[in-house]
Amino acid sequence: MASVYICLMKTRILLTIGDFNGIGPEIILKVISNPRFTKLYDLTVLSPLKILEYYAKKLNIKLFPGNFNIIPVGDEKIKIQPGKISDQAGFISGLAVIKAIVMCMSGDYDAIVTAPISKEALNIGGFNYDGHTGMLKDFGRADDVCMMMVSDKLTVALATTHPPLRDVSKMLTGKLLQSRLNICYRSLKNDYEISSPIVGVLGLNPHSGDRGVIGNEEIKIITPALKIMNKSKGYPAFNGPYAADAYFASSSYKKFDMTFAMYHDQGLIPFKMIAGMNGVNFTAGLSFVRTSPGHGTAFDIAGKNIANEKSMAEAIKLADKIIKNRLKKF
Amino acid sequence: MASVYICLMKTRILLTIGDFNGIGPEIILKVISNPRFTKLYDLTVLSPLKILEYYAKKLNIKLFPGNFNIIPVGDEKIKIQPGKISDQAGFISGLAVIKAIVMCMSGDYDAIVTAPISKEALNIGGFNYDGHTGMLKDFGRADDVCMMMVSDKLTVALATTHPPLRDVSKMLTGKLLQSRLNICYRSLKNDYEISSPIVGVLGLNPHSGDRGVIGNEEIKIITPALKIMNKSKGYPAFNGPYAADAYFASSSYKKFDMTFAMYHDQGLIPFKMIAGMNGVNFTAGLSFVRTSPGHGTAFDIAGKNIANEKSMAEAIKLADKIIKNRLKKF
Repeated sequence: MASVYICLMKTRILLTIGDFNGIGPEIILKVISNPRFTKLYDLTVLSPLKILEYYAKKLNIKLFPGNFNIIPVGDEKIKIQPGKISDQAGFISGLAVIKAIVMCMSGDYDAIVTAPISKEALNIGGFNYDGHTGMLKDFGRADDVCMMMVSDKLTVALATTHPPLRDVSKMLTGKLLQSRLNICYRSLKNDYEISSPIVGVLGLNPHSGDRGVIGNEEIKIITPALKIMNKSKGYPAFNGPYAADAYFASSSYKKFDMTFAMYHDQGLIPFKMIAGMNGVNFTAGLSFVRTSPGHGTAFDIAGKNIANEKSMAEAIKLADKIIKNRLKKF
Repeated sequence: MASVYICLMKTRILLTIGDFNGIGPEIILKVISNPRFTKLYDLTVLSPLKILEYYAKKLNIKLFPGNFNIIPVGDEKIKIQPGKISDQAGFISGLAVIKAIVMCMSGDYDAIVTAPISKEALNIGGFNYDGHTGMLKDFGRADDVCMMMVSDKLTVALATTHPPLRDVSKMLTGKLLQSRLNICYRSLKNDYEISSPIVGVLGLNPHSGDRGVIGNEEIKIITPALKIMNKSKGYPAFNGPYAADAYFASSSYKKFDMTFAMYHDQGLIPFKMIAGMNGVNFTAGLSFVRTSPGHGTAFDIAGKNIANEKSMAEAIKLADKIIKNRLKKF
């Protein structure tokens, strides 16, 4: 049945508008105005109509209405100010995400590709979240999720996503690591079709703690978690913890299907240096698929027609690939 | 007078043996056995004689005794076990550093180039330090020092060096940042001869705190410190704080004479990815010059004659260059 489905239907993907004062509307318009792209996917944009009209006119982008769908979100009485932080933009950005989650949970859509939001606008807009991931977990009713950055050169998953650096150590528990490593393992098998995945795990501290001289999280938390995980999988699927600087400098990441970093900058600095700005953010652990471009709102270039839609296009491609891989399992 | 001194005398450099169960002895022997090198510098090794004899024989390295000096350190009744952590090796490694500091402080030598030590061995050997930097600060009677990683591609200085990650935020104060940024500024002027240095400063948190949504150290500590510093210098010498991942991915570091990172992995992951393993560690803020290779003890390859002395050679070259730049100021 699955293969019939794949042949007959295009993947149904929701695109959320993101912060409408950032580059979200522009990169979405550039994708949905490209017939080479819209003929491959069934794309539906969640956005106030006014935003798409405003940016299409401002950026002189020609749309072909039959090639995509739009579902309006929120109030149309909005003030569009490219480059500005506003509570309205934050509210709309959060609302579109929640609506998209509900629509995927009901089974009518397969995936959400989210345009970038501003965490500051999101908060003053009334959503007490530090980004998409928390909203996806809560409204997507997932026990846990794991943020991954994906490119054809490397994949990096994060134990913790966007907490302040001072909170990272407190958050790292054996339970959290096991949960997120399990999500990664299942994702590598189901979403990426790797039969016996191997993961390189980084330490938290400089020199991975130097055998306990610099912090003890490696000895007390990370190493025991890897032992339990490897026992449960029956082979050394999880390797490390490695000193992060030497790991990347010696290209050790190439030996593994995925690198598992303990916190944002430890994973994202090397990821963006290696993958460039076109990496894709994928949230593993949800019942539906969610990806997003790897970049932010880029307020400094909003409305200037210089935003590059490549990462958004890659995010849509990856969502489509994962959906098709998952369907093969049925 | 200074130019006469430079013409007549070779720079007097002390080489400390490091952990004798690591690759320190090997890279030192490879340098001091090279006449092309010894004719440029006045090199003195601080080490038990037995260690140099043992490794010279084991690695079949021919020495020319007139080309360098050796000053014995510690007891000769030692057990050499390549690749092993031992209290004896930790004790000798620390003792050599302290002896070298005293010899530089007395004015008989210009610089110390330290071979790598094991923090674990150092501690079980009786020195309660997390690395060279703390010893250099204490025994070198410096108010404060700043660790820099130097290469011809980029220079990265660290606000904090080797604390456990959980302690980084607690250590970051305005006073600490101002002290270390001042050391960097003076070093760029005096040691690197840059008349109006500009420094790129990274934020602590993901996305540099995203305007206060992810931690507040950028708003409460880093930005005010940069303002005070720039006022005192009379121009925007210190720029940022920048989001570390985007900063390196977009090669922004190329715009600055130095990048100032908040903690070890934030600076060292990109440094080692860009500079390779041949970077040099330089301790700024001391009355004498101290450099070291950028790599560690490499216990896994100790005694196998495969260690590369390039970073050690670069460390000696940099020490010589800085001494000569400093002397020009007289």
